[in-house]
Amino acid sequence: MAEDVALGHSSEKFIFKGVLTQMVKKRSKQEDSKPIRITPLGGCGEIGRNMMTIEDNQTMIVIDAGVMFPEHDMLGIDLVIPDFSYVREHREKIKAIFITHGHEDHIGALPFLLREIQVPIYATKLAESLIMHKLEEYKMQDMAQIQIVSDGERVQVGHFEVEFIAANHSIPDDVAMAIRTPLGTIIHSSDFKFDYTPVGKQGSHLSRLAQIGAEDVLLLMADSTGAARPGSTPSESIVQDAFEDIFRAAPGRVIITTFASLLARIQQAINVAAELHRVVTITGYSMKQYVGIAQELNYLDIPKDVLVDVREINRYPDNQVVIITTGSQGQPEAALERMADERHRDIQIKPNDTVVFSATPIPGNEEDVSRVINKLIKLGAEVIYPPLAPVHVSGHASQEEIKLLLTLVRPQNYLPIHGELRHLHANANIAQELGLSADHIFQIENGDTLLIHSNGKMEIQPQSTKGEYIFVDGSGVGDIGPAVIHDREILSRDGFIIIGVQWDQAAGTIIPPIDLVSRGFVYLRESAPLMQNARNQLTATLEQFGPGTSKRKLSEALRKDLQRYLFKETRRRPMIIPMITYI
Amino acid sequence: MAEDVALGHSSEKFIFKGVLTQMVKKRSKQEDSKPIRITPLGGCGEIGRNMMTIEDNQTMIVIDAGVMFPEHDMLGIDLVIPDFSYVREHREKIKAIFITHGHEDHIGALPFLLREIQVPIYATKLAESLIMHKLEEYKMQDMAQIQIVSDGERVQVGHFEVEFIAANHSIPDDVAMAIRTPLGTIIHSSDFKFDYTPVGKQGSHLSRLAQIGAEDVLLLMADSTGAARPGSTPSESIVQDAFEDIFRAAPGRVIITTFASLLARIQQAINVAAELHRVVTITGYSMKQYVGIAQELNYLDIPKDVLVDVREINRYPDNQVVIITTGSQGQPEAALERMADERHRDIQIKPNDTVVFSATPIPGNEEDVSRVINKLIKLGAEVIYPPLAPVHVSGHASQEEIKLLLTLVRPQNYLPIHGELRHLHANANIAQELGLSADHIFQIENGDTLLIHSNGKMEIQPQSTKGEYIFVDGSGVGDIGPAVIHDREILSRDGFIIIGVQWDQAAGTIIPPIDLVSRGFVYLRESAPLMQNARNQLTATLEQFGPGTSKRKLSEALRKDLQRYLFKETRRRPMIIPMITYI
Repeated sequence: MAEDVALGHSSEKFIFKGVLTQMVKKRSKQEDSKPIRITPLGGCGEIGRNMMTIEDNQTMIVIDAGVMFPEHDMLGIDLVIPDFSYVREHREKIKAIFITHGHEDHIGALPFLLREIQVPIYATKLAESLIMHKLEEYKMQDMAQIQIVSDGERVQVGHFEVEFIAANHSIPDDVAMAIRTPLGTIIHSSDFKFDYTPVGKQGSHLSRLAQIGAEDVLLLMADSTGAARPGSTPSESIVQDAFEDIFRAAPGRVIITTFASLLARIQQAINVAAELHRVVTITGYSMKQYVGIAQELNYLDIPKDVLVDVREINRYPDNQVVIITTGSQGQPEAALERMADERHRDIQIKPNDTVVFSATPIPGNEEDVSRVINKLIKLGAEVIYPPLAPVHVSGHASQEEIKLLLTLVRPQNYLPIHGELRHLHANANIAQELGLSADHIFQIENGDTLLIHSNGKMEIQPQSTKGEYIFVDGSGVGDIGPAVIHDREILSRDGFIIIGVQWDQAAGTIIPPIDLVSRGFVYLRESAPLMQNARNQLTATLEQFGPGTSKRKLSEALRKDLQRYLFKETRRRPMIIPMITYI
Repeated sequence: MAEDVALGHSSEKFIFKGVLTQMVKKRSKQEDSKPIRITPLGGCGEIGRNMMTIEDNQTMIVIDAGVMFPEHDMLGIDLVIPDFSYVREHREKIKAIFITHGHEDHIGALPFLLREIQVPIYATKLAESLIMHKLEEYKMQDMAQIQIVSDGERVQVGHFEVEFIAANHSIPDDVAMAIRTPLGTIIHSSDFKFDYTPVGKQGSHLSRLAQIGAEDVLLLMADSTGAARPGSTPSESIVQDAFEDIFRAAPGRVIITTFASLLARIQQAINVAAELHRVVTITGYSMKQYVGIAQELNYLDIPKDVLVDVREINRYPDNQVVIITTGSQGQPEAALERMADERHRDIQIKPNDTVVFSATPIPGNEEDVSRVINKLIKLGAEVIYPPLAPVHVSGHASQEEIKLLLTLVRPQNYLPIHGELRHLHANANIAQELGLSADHIFQIENGDTLLIHSNGKMEIQPQSTKGEYIFVDGSGVGDIGPAVIHDREILSRDGFIIIGVQWDQAAGTIIPPIDLVSRGFVYLRESAPLMQNARNQLTATLEQFGPGTSKRKLSEALRKDLQRYLFKETRRRPMIIPMITYI
């Protein structure tokens, strides 16, 4: 084994040097151990939709089952979930689902997964509560058996023992996992950052990671989301100073928007409000839901009489009011957007309001967020958003924190997870910079398997399964594929035009008039001449055909002809649908 | 006038204090001067589409005529241009068009504007050349008379005298303008930054701005694009150090992508290539076009034998090659995207390639850029992009530079231009922070007029004209409005379904079968039962009607019925088009 471990680390680099002997000593592999396979079904090659399976010959466990929010070109799609084929094929081996934390990109696909497999779910207290609320929405609350776990607890499943380790993230109750296997210990970092001055029920068990690092860690799987960001992510608590400055300066109400699950942020807004004798009201569906759950479970510390109902705020002077609301991503139906559009039932924006975006736009949401900010300014509000003031910090580790994790855990092998390929790659580069040799760093994508041989050597098996996008659209799951999306794309660009023709089969002539119906193509009221010319053109085309002409032939001629004509006249290519009635 | 000027500046703040007496002394207004009206038609409330008019009773001048690139919800739109109604109404007064620089968002609407008015255009050398190339594309090169102007020159038009002042930006030959009017001097900053170590034919005439600032400047109009960014924008020249590090470390070819108009960046890539004995090839349509123009006009300093044709690069070892390419915004048809998709004719990505994104994504392009980066990494290339290395700087002033501009020019009044409302507002806040009083700072949007009375007082006249978006789609200009876009939106979400029905008018019954055609709704091959049930349902619905039923009534019934059924079954709302043939 000595060469094997030595191979893993280029000896010039310092962090992995001191520990080599120790690691070799501790390592004692059972000769009859079976290989282990790690297969990400989501989250390795994208932000979101995190899910992986870990298995030996007898047992498979699942870690997380999240959704991804659709990108701009996934037209009309509501959610993207992992492809469960691999889970389906190994249904009988699956013994448990482990959840790292309660964010949508880690729990959002559970309602769909539970239709396939029903095994015990292990989750922390807050995650459990969020899962149950989600399952209630899907009327599936009876389908899950969830065990609540917490920092330091261990669960044995087959040959795997999973230990939960408190981690710090932008939601409370995040846990990393140390998975002890017959081949060695595997650590899953979960989404994490290191915060020395966290807010609320947070904490990252740095010393526990260091202890386990002193053991022989076979593999570290670590969050890559922030791996392209140099430096360290600032502590959550820096936001409180910014809030204090803003609240003190605000001549009227303060309206704060952030992620509903970012309870530490909400706590800080409440702290500052209470300190400056402002009451707080909560608005927006998910904000009310999360704050409700957090209050029930004691995750928010709210002084007496601070929280008031939204309909009561008009009883207080403006400079004694704070409103915490949904809408930090510019979502069209969120409470803040309704305020910006002057269609919120209870809250009208006033010129002395100060609106704080305590969030940055998730890539893809920039335009929506800008639009809401602009509307609020137009209504006279002062709007504060990053980088105007330090009112947001990320929940993910930057490069220096990833280095700290690697330094504490000193793994023999490294598997970047959670992120687009570029993030995984940046994360792999960090490990290499710290001295781990390239052949002990594995860059895999959804559907690939990292196979751990019984001697501890690892190799990538490409595409053990498809890591494909499964689209959820309305109540349909997986019934929308690339062809339908492609049609939506054409329609979104240039609309369509229907050619309604009645064809006298016996005579081999049309029965006029030709009916043209279009949507999304041109403004019809101003396009009468264009349409009339098109009709004339098509009529002429049909005159070339006689009795016995097939529908297919007529359709083809009409389509080609109209396409050519419309492109010449408009430089557009609407979808053309001939509808021919044989009479 | 003394109170008037004093009003303009709160005396506690320092920068405007010392100059008050001087300004009052210098000010001498002709009693019979006529009011001046400044009306932005674009660029005040958005990024892009910059255009404004300045007029007195006799003369109107236009500054810039740019395009905006469509946002995500402007489905199928190619370009957005300003609404020219105001220009059209004052056609006879318009005497000249002044161009600040050659970026698309300042010259792109000229081909459309020149169809309305044909007056002399004043532009710097590079801008002139770019305009002529653009007009050639539209076959309009004979419609423009362009006068080339440069730093220090002055042009008299009616009562206005325009002096050009070299400014620094992300394209050479940018000019600010000092417009002397009977009511005082108006300064237009153009897009700008202050760069003390510029690259190439750049330069900002700081001392000239200071000289004019010593005169009585009535109004400063200044670029707001970077006004929400604290600090100063780094110098263009810092990028060269990053390039040197990257080129030296690169084991093989270096492929650099940036904006084609960012000649200073291209110059730096060429400098470092020449220094390290690498040849350079240029690829991508607009990159070749801009480099061609720049060479012709001597805006690039290219050592002999450095530039080679793309088909010759395979004759050099990989570590002696640099490729400069289009595609920094992830554009689907740009050369870099074609390389990433393995469909570029001459260049195949190799594992030892280093690709440098010397640009940041314009808001809205993040997903496209990420996708290209991920594809390149997948092909084995090392990809470097901000913030992994300092390979890009902005061309727009940040907050400290805007403060410097204000301090040099010391205007009596301030009009933020060029930016979304939030940028204009951030810019206004900067002026207020520097001591200019709020009633001398004007936040106006497209279509509003800033009216300067003959006594020098200013007021906003809201909506003198519509500042509306005019959409260019194919060859159509302005024929696509909100209704068509709305239809495209519905179609992009859930597609459409056509109900083809033949109706026996005499009998008052349908002639079966009902024909259902859909696109973008469901995958048809898997939806046969859904469609059959829908047909049965619709047939039943039609049985309720008899002879004499109007088409409208039948249509309405079919539409409602199918919508209800499909929503119940699929939770989707496709557009429904009944096509009823009366027989």
